[in-house]
Amino acid sequence: MQTSLDCLPCFLHQALGVARRISDQPTRQQEILLAANRLLTDFDLDLSPPENAISLYRLLTEMSGCPDLFAELKRQSNRQTLEMLPDLRLKLATAPNPLEMAVRLAIAGNIIDYGALVDFDLQTVINRCQTAELKGTTFSQFNSDLRNARNILYLADNCGELAFDRLLIEQLDQPVTVAVKESPILNDALREDALFCRIDKVAEIISNGTACPGTPLGRCSKAFQQCFAEADLIISKGQGNFETLSEVRAPIYFLLMVKCPTVAAHLNDLDNPPAAGFKLGDLVLKRSR
Amino acid sequence: MQTSLDCLPCFLHQALGVARRISDQPTRQQEILLAANRLLTDFDLDLSPPENAISLYRLLTEMSGCPDLFAELKRQSNRQTLEMLPDLRLKLATAPNPLEMAVRLAIAGNIIDYGALVDFDLQTVINRCQTAELKGTTFSQFNSDLRNARNILYLADNCGELAFDRLLIEQLDQPVTVAVKESPILNDALREDALFCRIDKVAEIISNGTACPGTPLGRCSKAFQQCFAEADLIISKGQGNFETLSEVRAPIYFLLMVKCPTVAAHLNDLDNPPAAGFKLGDLVLKRSR
Repeated sequence: MQTSLDCLPCFLHQALGVARRISDQPTRQQEILLAANRLLTDFDLDLSPPENAISLYRLLTEMSGCPDLFAELKRQSNRQTLEMLPDLRLKLATAPNPLEMAVRLAIAGNIIDYGALVDFDLQTVINRCQTAELKGTTFSQFNSDLRNARNILYLADNCGELAFDRLLIEQLDQPVTVAVKESPILNDALREDALFCRIDKVAEIISNGTACPGTPLGRCSKAFQQCFAEADLIISKGQGNFETLSEVRAPIYFLLMVKCPTVAAHLNDLDNPPAAGFKLGDLVLKRSR
Repeated sequence: MQTSLDCLPCFLHQALGVARRISDQPTRQQEILLAANRLLTDFDLDLSPPENAISLYRLLTEMSGCPDLFAELKRQSNRQTLEMLPDLRLKLATAPNPLEMAVRLAIAGNIIDYGALVDFDLQTVINRCQTAELKGTTFSQFNSDLRNARNILYLADNCGELAFDRLLIEQLDQPVTVAVKESPILNDALREDALFCRIDKVAEIISNGTACPGTPLGRCSKAFQQCFAEADLIISKGQGNFETLSEVRAPIYFLLMVKCPTVAAHLNDLDNPPAAGFKLGDLVLKRSR
């Protein structure tokens, strides 16, 4: 998915949020915002938004003097969601279809995002996700494709969400490899987060080799690229992974919550013939083309 | 009210909307957006947002080669709202308090705005405005101040809205002067729009001498400044007039719908001690300090 002109005001809005995180001095906030603004004019719109985000967040990180702007937020969201696991496991144990419920919860967890959205109420989202329509591909198709896969590559997205990912991984019978980012970008999950959430108990952990809030294959490590090529089925979480992989031919299921109109529009563009009518807030379970 | 850093992404978003109105070619849209983006870095944040908007819309107008980007939209909204007048007059005639109903309808009309908002459903807004709380100053205080005024200056805001303004002006017993903008800016009302809505039948029409989507007194014509100084009571419609006059000491009543969080925050800053808790979508009837 290419970067839309609509992404530019959104990037500037994100930069302002980070500037306010970096400093409470209006003049410093303004300096940071204007530096980000100048950078926007150099963006390559043929690249995906997460690829353009790399240089934006690199600039913001440099200006902050702090290597991991979201470190505290990530720790908090990891802790908070891990505490929810006993209740969520009970929900799974009593669900008519635990696998489907785990998929729904994994999508609910995708609301934890400090790029696209700042305000969210996780509990409300969890409640909604239990009954809301899953758009894209039927769950039974997903289930059938899943049963035919001997191994699964699971592309993690954000911290917090990881605890929910673990619930879904626990439902899978095959060997699972979980891919995280190599170094800090937004609140994207790193190896340390995966270890904190004890993902290592249920899956192998691998880095994709980037500090991109997505999976731009050409920039990923050779080891990751090989793992991607050998995967029977790839579960891709969140918008960033979707934005970078939406046009890649591979056995991918995208699990995400639609958090921006540009992603909704791209989902609709890919939906041929148009059927789902993707819109903001939708829960998506969608097989790649 | 000063320009907030939050206004910069919003200006860029507005510029994109106008770029798409100017051209359906993505490369041309990108040129226009990037030119607007470069301009943002020169904005003087000590000025009000409408004052900074002058240079932005001047640039967009120059790049479009069209002197009045919103001409057709303005004509449409003038026509559409004039057609609503018979029904609205019936509503007024049967209202327990026609003046209060006219104030409410005048605020409802303020939803017609192609800067802050693009999507709105006027009929829904009209219905809501008939019963929703008016925040700021009580209607009875407004009514009392109104009865003591021998003449009224009415600062118009947008086209379409003008028809609703006329209904309120018809309820006033004093001589009324309606101020419009001197030349095209967004969908702000000009003399020709006031004439089209037959405002001349119920009030004198004056230009404020600017192409600013607000009333920046220092930039207004001498004739307008004198009219402003001599007014017993000033009714100021909309966000743009509020943003430019919020800190002016004059007998102003601001009538507006809150359409952006920065304006809501400024209203709350001015509300001392804080009482109203202004937020998006609120209907405001507020006496200046």
